[in-house]
Amino acid sequence: MSKIETTLTDMGITLPDAPAPAANYVPFVVTGNQVWVSGQISQGPDGLMIGKLGDDIDVNTGAAAAQACAISLLAQLKNACDGDLDRLVRVIKLVGMVNCTPDFTDQPKVINGASDFLVAALGDKGRHARSAVGVASLPMGVMVEIEAVFEIA
Amino acid sequence: MSKIETTLTDMGITLPDAPAPAANYVPFVVTGNQVWVSGQISQGPDGLMIGKLGDDIDVNTGAAAAQACAISLLAQLKNACDGDLDRLVRVIKLVGMVNCTPDFTDQPKVINGASDFLVAALGDKGRHARSAVGVASLPMGVMVEIEAVFEIA
Amino acid sequence: MSKIETTLTDMGITLPDAPAPAANYVPFVVTGNQVWVSGQISQGPDGLMIGKLGDDIDVNTGAAAAQACAISLLAQLKNACDGDLDRLVRVIKLVGMVNCTPDFTDQPKVINGASDFLVAALGDKGRHARSAVGVASLPMGVMVEIEAVFEIA
Repeated sequence: MSKIETTLTDMGITLPDAPAPAANYVPFVVTGNQVWVSGQISQGPDGLMIGKLGDDIDVNTGAAAAQACAISLLAQLKNACDGDLDRLVRVIKLVGMVNCTPDFTDQPKVINGASDFLVAALGDKGRHARSAVGVASLPMGVMVEIEAVFEIA
Repeated sequence: MSKIETTLTDMGITLPDAPAPAANYVPFVVTGNQVWVSGQISQGPDGLMIGKLGDDIDVNTGAAAAQACAISLLAQLKNACDGDLDRLVRVIKLVGMVNCTPDFTDQPKVINGASDFLVAALGDKGRHARSAVGVASLPMGVMVEIEAVFEIA
Repeated sequence: MSKIETTLTDMGITLPDAPAPAANYVPFVVTGNQVWVSGQISQGPDGLMIGKLGDDIDVNTGAAAAQACAISLLAQLKNACDGDLDRLVRVIKLVGMVNCTPDFTDQPKVINGASDFLVAALGDKGRHARSAVGVASLPMGVMVEIEAVFEIA
């Protein structure tokens, strides 16, 4: 097992099967030493994590949804690395999109659910550039969608 | 004529002149073997394709707008390749932004208009990573805007 | 002083200290010859530039906010270049996100505040690919957030 997956296990997290795309595209593209991963929507063992921040969802629940997106990103990355997550050089960039009302302004606290998790799981390799924005709506009504670019060896 | 344009012709599609940017920027930048194309807004032979999904526009009309964006992306890519689309290695990534109401959740079906077209036109080279999101509004009130990154030889 | 900073000084602009991230991430990542800079929110010497286009903020004020984002992007880029902005080869891409109402359609005019500034400050190196979109809301209620990718030598 890769060192990264050992750390994940110590954190009590097992990577799920990488979610299948919702439409006619692929979950990731490897180009040179970059892996571009499709936007991962918030879902967990109990299914889609649906709702709108600033309306029926609080920040902590949103942050948990963001962590779920990050776990899916790592599951996709593992496939991109032919199963060996230790090929990861670093996380380059996340774009975190929060399904929220027009007056919601805590997007950073929500996306921290993904950022904090990646740094906890990956150490310095997990430190990434990031944007966090609020969007009008997301596929299937999910709370959060996050896309990422990784550098691999 | 490139093989890709022959396929487009067989599909009944002629690439238009690449749309000019709406402001002080360039339609694409080539860096290494990547082509980064500016967001293309939905427009066709009859002008801008305007409206809001979940309000006055249905999913099929939105998907046609997304296809129009993809056609513009290929027109820009052709210029980036000095006229030879067969230099395309693959589509790396699309970000599809749908102008929609806060309760609209079918962004994937809308952006499929672009994804399905690219796979039909380009085959395996057209399979891409993707994010689809709903945004509050878009330039000039268009239905869809899509940006892309391509790998070329 | 780099040539670029001399030009900025001639324009009456002094690069501020690069803003610290609002959460657990880094302001930029260098990968190969690309610098990926985190989304910079609109802020100036007087603090955060807050408001919503189409509601309480006009286009010119929004464009000034976009210019402020671009100045922060250059401040981050300078750090990524170990202080020497002349290592910049070119601006590859901006994504400009405008905090606006659902009926606001002048996102390009707002983001021109960043694009015009970059071309004025950097010349041909400042010509970039771009997307401009309207989003439901932004961190801390700021008017504009812009992320960028640069190529450096």
